[in-house]
Amino acid sequence: MTEKKKVLLAFSGGLDTSYCAIWLAKEKGYDVHTAAVNTGGFDAEETEALAEKAQKLGIQNHVMLNVEEEFYQKGIKYLVFGNVLKNHTYPLSVSAERVFQAVAIAEYAKEIGADAIAHGSTGAGNDQVRFDLVFNVMAPGVEIITPIRDQKLSREEEVEYLKENGIDQEWAKAKYSINQGLWGTSVGGAETLTSHQGLPEDAWPTKVTATDSKKVELEFKQGELIGIDGQQFSPVQAIKELEKIASPYGVGRDIHVGDTIIGIKGRVGFEAAAPMIIIKSHQLLEKHTLGKWQLHWKDQLADWYGMLMHEGQYLDPVMRNIETFLEDTQETVSGKVFVKLEHKRFELEGIESDHDLMASKFGQYGEMNNAWSGEDVKGFTKILANSMLIQKQTQNQTND
Amino acid sequence: MTEKKKVLLAFSGGLDTSYCAIWLAKEKGYDVHTAAVNTGGFDAEETEALAEKAQKLGIQNHVMLNVEEEFYQKGIKYLVFGNVLKNHTYPLSVSAERVFQAVAIAEYAKEIGADAIAHGSTGAGNDQVRFDLVFNVMAPGVEIITPIRDQKLSREEEVEYLKENGIDQEWAKAKYSINQGLWGTSVGGAETLTSHQGLPEDAWPTKVTATDSKKVELEFKQGELIGIDGQQFSPVQAIKELEKIASPYGVGRDIHVGDTIIGIKGRVGFEAAAPMIIIKSHQLLEKHTLGKWQLHWKDQLADWYGMLMHEGQYLDPVMRNIETFLEDTQETVSGKVFVKLEHKRFELEGIESDHDLMASKFGQYGEMNNAWSGEDVKGFTKILANSMLIQKQTQNQTND
Amino acid sequence: MTEKKKVLLAFSGGLDTSYCAIWLAKEKGYDVHTAAVNTGGFDAEETEALAEKAQKLGIQNHVMLNVEEEFYQKGIKYLVFGNVLKNHTYPLSVSAERVFQAVAIAEYAKEIGADAIAHGSTGAGNDQVRFDLVFNVMAPGVEIITPIRDQKLSREEEVEYLKENGIDQEWAKAKYSINQGLWGTSVGGAETLTSHQGLPEDAWPTKVTATDSKKVELEFKQGELIGIDGQQFSPVQAIKELEKIASPYGVGRDIHVGDTIIGIKGRVGFEAAAPMIIIKSHQLLEKHTLGKWQLHWKDQLADWYGMLMHEGQYLDPVMRNIETFLEDTQETVSGKVFVKLEHKRFELEGIESDHDLMASKFGQYGEMNNAWSGEDVKGFTKILANSMLIQKQTQNQTND
Amino acid sequence: MTEKKKVLLAFSGGLDTSYCAIWLAKEKGYDVHTAAVNTGGFDAEETEALAEKAQKLGIQNHVMLNVEEEFYQKGIKYLVFGNVLKNHTYPLSVSAERVFQAVAIAEYAKEIGADAIAHGSTGAGNDQVRFDLVFNVMAPGVEIITPIRDQKLSREEEVEYLKENGIDQEWAKAKYSINQGLWGTSVGGAETLTSHQGLPEDAWPTKVTATDSKKVELEFKQGELIGIDGQQFSPVQAIKELEKIASPYGVGRDIHVGDTIIGIKGRVGFEAAAPMIIIKSHQLLEKHTLGKWQLHWKDQLADWYGMLMHEGQYLDPVMRNIETFLEDTQETVSGKVFVKLEHKRFELEGIESDHDLMASKFGQYGEMNNAWSGEDVKGFTKILANSMLIQKQTQNQTND
Repeated sequence: MTEKKKVLLAFSGGLDTSYCAIWLAKEKGYDVHTAAVNTGGFDAEETEALAEKAQKLGIQNHVMLNVEEEFYQKGIKYLVFGNVLKNHTYPLSVSAERVFQAVAIAEYAKEIGADAIAHGSTGAGNDQVRFDLVFNVMAPGVEIITPIRDQKLSREEEVEYLKENGIDQEWAKAKYSINQGLWGTSVGGAETLTSHQGLPEDAWPTKVTATDSKKVELEFKQGELIGIDGQQFSPVQAIKELEKIASPYGVGRDIHVGDTIIGIKGRVGFEAAAPMIIIKSHQLLEKHTLGKWQLHWKDQLADWYGMLMHEGQYLDPVMRNIETFLEDTQETVSGKVFVKLEHKRFELEGIESDHDLMASKFGQYGEMNNAWSGEDVKGFTKILANSMLIQKQTQNQTND
Repeated sequence: MTEKKKVLLAFSGGLDTSYCAIWLAKEKGYDVHTAAVNTGGFDAEETEALAEKAQKLGIQNHVMLNVEEEFYQKGIKYLVFGNVLKNHTYPLSVSAERVFQAVAIAEYAKEIGADAIAHGSTGAGNDQVRFDLVFNVMAPGVEIITPIRDQKLSREEEVEYLKENGIDQEWAKAKYSINQGLWGTSVGGAETLTSHQGLPEDAWPTKVTATDSKKVELEFKQGELIGIDGQQFSPVQAIKELEKIASPYGVGRDIHVGDTIIGIKGRVGFEAAAPMIIIKSHQLLEKHTLGKWQLHWKDQLADWYGMLMHEGQYLDPVMRNIETFLEDTQETVSGKVFVKLEHKRFELEGIESDHDLMASKFGQYGEMNNAWSGEDVKGFTKILANSMLIQKQTQNQTND
Repeated sequence: MTEKKKVLLAFSGGLDTSYCAIWLAKEKGYDVHTAAVNTGGFDAEETEALAEKAQKLGIQNHVMLNVEEEFYQKGIKYLVFGNVLKNHTYPLSVSAERVFQAVAIAEYAKEIGADAIAHGSTGAGNDQVRFDLVFNVMAPGVEIITPIRDQKLSREEEVEYLKENGIDQEWAKAKYSINQGLWGTSVGGAETLTSHQGLPEDAWPTKVTATDSKKVELEFKQGELIGIDGQQFSPVQAIKELEKIASPYGVGRDIHVGDTIIGIKGRVGFEAAAPMIIIKSHQLLEKHTLGKWQLHWKDQLADWYGMLMHEGQYLDPVMRNIETFLEDTQETVSGKVFVKLEHKRFELEGIESDHDLMASKFGQYGEMNNAWSGEDVKGFTKILANSMLIQKQTQNQTND
Repeated sequence: MTEKKKVLLAFSGGLDTSYCAIWLAKEKGYDVHTAAVNTGGFDAEETEALAEKAQKLGIQNHVMLNVEEEFYQKGIKYLVFGNVLKNHTYPLSVSAERVFQAVAIAEYAKEIGADAIAHGSTGAGNDQVRFDLVFNVMAPGVEIITPIRDQKLSREEEVEYLKENGIDQEWAKAKYSINQGLWGTSVGGAETLTSHQGLPEDAWPTKVTATDSKKVELEFKQGELIGIDGQQFSPVQAIKELEKIASPYGVGRDIHVGDTIIGIKGRVGFEAAAPMIIIKSHQLLEKHTLGKWQLHWKDQLADWYGMLMHEGQYLDPVMRNIETFLEDTQETVSGKVFVKLEHKRFELEGIESDHDLMASKFGQYGEMNNAWSGEDVKGFTKILANSMLIQKQTQNQTND
């Protein structure tokens, strides 16, 4: 008797991956294992509920892979160091998460000796590329199976198939597709398929309940958020704590529009209170503690880092080199940032840091000083003008 | 009898340049001409008041040089095309203005055959460099005189000197130093000399009076704002109109922190309702109408353009090349942007454009499509994985 | 009676595309049209020989599309403006040519109303991607057929198939695969499949016959080569003339190693006497006539331009924007460059230009001057040191 | 009795710094200390000769500071990692050296408690800026004295002054100004003050004596040259050994034209056999062992690194961050490079490396392979074409 071939299915408990689970077992004869990956979006209750769903589908081997800490240490940390906002807007809430989910799935697939990996992505989004890319690189011999992308079934056909196979239940159809994780929540719906409409208030998963104004003090150490209002946290806990404080104010909401990996434009709403506040606070602290060219080159490299992360190319070796650069710049990025939360907005009031280059005794903008003289600045501008003056005179000479 | 040497003084009517006017005439024996440059901050009343001040000081030749339109056509336009926000924050409200003031002064100095140009900058800021640089390049033979920078007098000493010379008046000492122009208003004061304090409400020149929510529809044509709520304007008028509509909401306020041209860090508040809304709206329109690499390279070049503009190096020939590039990208950047104004914030709801790449029949993000198949994406990711896979395998080979 | 479907085959006359011609007609029932594209590699004799080959295969409709001038005006010109050497080495001899061949084929296919386009590329190189990409963009409804890539036949199987179909001839099998065009000739062979071997002398198509030393004077006008040794030429003729003069010296030979579009590394020899001399001469002229930041940004944009050209993404709109930038920088790039040819090497002796920024009366490197004083430079360096000094002091403060 | 103030003079033994030594003692009453810095250009004999010259001038405290190893470890190493050739030509032979000389002088000045540092730079070159900048940052309280720059004396006046002060000797006036160091030798003369002339054969310090062809095998370990023809060397020794082997062939000679720090254009000849061979060999090895984006970003950062090094801004903190990045990329840059030396040229024949990405079993350029299919590439190009196709269609839609 031949042993059955083993498939690992990335499982969300929804209609699509439930269909995949049954289809892979019944039609393809696979021994189906399922795994979900927690990058910060699942609590204990949801984890258990997912296990029950897997059991109902007859899956013997379901696991929840927890990579929250890894997601922070190998991903979010660098997104903060780089102040990464894709297209000047989007903190990569879902994009980055997917990469770490794919990595966890690929590692687990190798651990259990899976012959195939299955995922429920459709053929029109970024996620299929992120999953396929990581699997192709990390598990090159393992087959990738994508029933939803390949079969293009309607919702009704999937429900019907499951019913025929003994799985008869209500499949909730949400008006908005929500994706929650440690680094933000994405929201897609009818409006995001247009170019001209914003999302209505009730589309946002977090309700705006705070109406007051509140001051928050964030403490960074070498680029990482380690304290809020005087209390110390691990970075992951700090993100969660800040999210709890800030999200009732409705801050960090926006709509991202950009190029998908497959070349079409895409549009998605997101709410990311903690990520937006952390990135903007960190960036302000850097403006005070880093030099002009450090800020310049950080921007260049971080923009690229964000792009490759967004496009699932996290495993490209240049990413490790960029991480090294970013980390090296954070040595002096320590101090406090003073934030004021208000209804749907926040303000950065200022910073305090031992490394603050403004606080130098040396010279103060707009104020008298003794470190240099007016003559020095005259000399400076005279020399700085040289190249422009020569180009101007050489051109005039020949133009006249 | 020798003719007196002629100096052109950049004149603001304040204590510093009034001191300069008298000092240049009395101590240096110059025939003093004064000029102010209107880049959008002066109305007719202020223009007349300034002329009167000049007259009281005994200046025979005072002019107001109006370069508002030139400022837009040769400066602001490209700042919009490039979505220029210095350090991700500052629309260069004062920086850009100074350059065009310096250019106007240099041209007028040559026109009247001035032997010297004087300006009232101190020795601790950016403006001295912007003025000196432009004068050095455009009027290389003309002496630059900077009494304030050179003499480092106290306020009291200046008042005293003026009194001794028959100019006895009250010199208003504002708590905040305000600089108003077409592209925004800067605000400096006690708080901006610290790193940790924001500006108090009463420091901001424009009071927040609107408490409602208001929708505004902006129309862009090839990158330029030409219409508001269905009414057509010249670009300069459109900026002024939008400022009138939006500034009562208190939007576009922030504090810029960054490297000054002379190497120290500086901090300055600004309010720039129209500039911020225009830049953010224009940028959103571009996300819908330009390709990925166009957006990427626009960012690179515009960031550089903003830096050189900020640092007074507007006359570097590369600036003209960058302008050509930016202009060339704007061909399809036409359409409407829907903006919602609220208390101290604004939202971009969406856009509408004939050139919208989202509106393509071709493919819609997250939706089924027929333009390519799941197999195509599989092939795409397989080939895209090649380089990463080879690097991984080659490394493993040698690491194991 | 149904009309036959029409296929346009990109035809080289070799074994592969001859096989394709017969196979498309016999097995697929197509009405086969063939076209070759002259980007500078074909003379009249070769053109006629190719037409005869087509006739022998029974092709009724064969054409030679001449795009030499277009190749120069829309491609080579910008490669010169940008001094494009892929990976610091390769003038894109074949890469650029392929793009213009693909464009010509796509246009002709649309002109004759072809239902399909066929090309003889294999599945392991860059050319398949260049052709497919251009066809996908320019002729989206037209099927792409690639028999060689799909069928992976051996040389013997192709010969046998042709014999069975009445085409019985000797198919020359060259030891080195040579590809000649206006912008250089590529050479592939056993050695280029290794990493450690250079090409032997007899692999290079052009024999080194000149043993003397020869001076050549090149004249550029706004970036374009328009004269050699005092004689005027059209740019295309100038390239050919220089190639005739310089190639006997064996200059411009090298081996390019780099990333292919499909992610593997590739290695190919090339000889490109005229392109290398033109690019290096043009670059030297620019060093004398352009400013520091112009040179800097030209390099950035040209490097990207070369990469997208190499990878077949010539039709990306950003390419048009970059061309505009590059063209705008060439206004002053006029003058003469003095070249010395020797055995397998050339030297640039110097330049002469009305726009030479070295020739300025203003200041001469290493020589006394009156335009600025030692004090000016002292001031310059003092101000330039400010940021570094502040960072050093702030760090020391906290490190101690 | 007041103690005399102490000055440290950067001493070369030539006319200019001899004049400075006497002038500082006699006219300014300083206790004059002198130091020379060996960055690889001095042997024992020259070191002794210099000490004698100092003694003749009456200097009691002369030292030779040896920083050859530091120059390599903190400078050259990164120039190699970055393949730094300023303006695509110049390995920064003198530029980099000056920085390390300035650092050594500044450190020694602080060690001996000098009140002032003097150097003999003129007012028309880069060196004055490099020295001033480093001194301003590292020794901010210490006065900088530059008699040559300030007094602008003629050669004859200096000789006369020395004679009057008892120093009566022949001051050799070389036709060419030569500057020799570990990383190359610069050559300035009448021709380099023009734009159109090359240097004559007898201007080059190293005579071309080798007429044969010779193969050399270089071994790199993580980016550093550690072996030649099978023999191991320390990096500094390896550079010297390779220079000894290669310089008789006359390779690595060229003329650098570029923007000086003070804004004028400068031109200087150089011979740098070992540096050019090392950089080009290292670069080839990287093309085989690094990925596409690693090569891309290395180029960006290294270009900047070279510019700041050239301009004396070595102490900017961003330089340390870039060094970290460059070092991080070198992990796999190990292997052998095969070089062929010939008369005035060298060829790179190829490389051999355990990390060679070409040697992958995975796929070979231009050869059949099984890792992917023709269908995969079709899918790849189809998806890659998407964005261009959409832009084309959207534009056509609106243009028609």
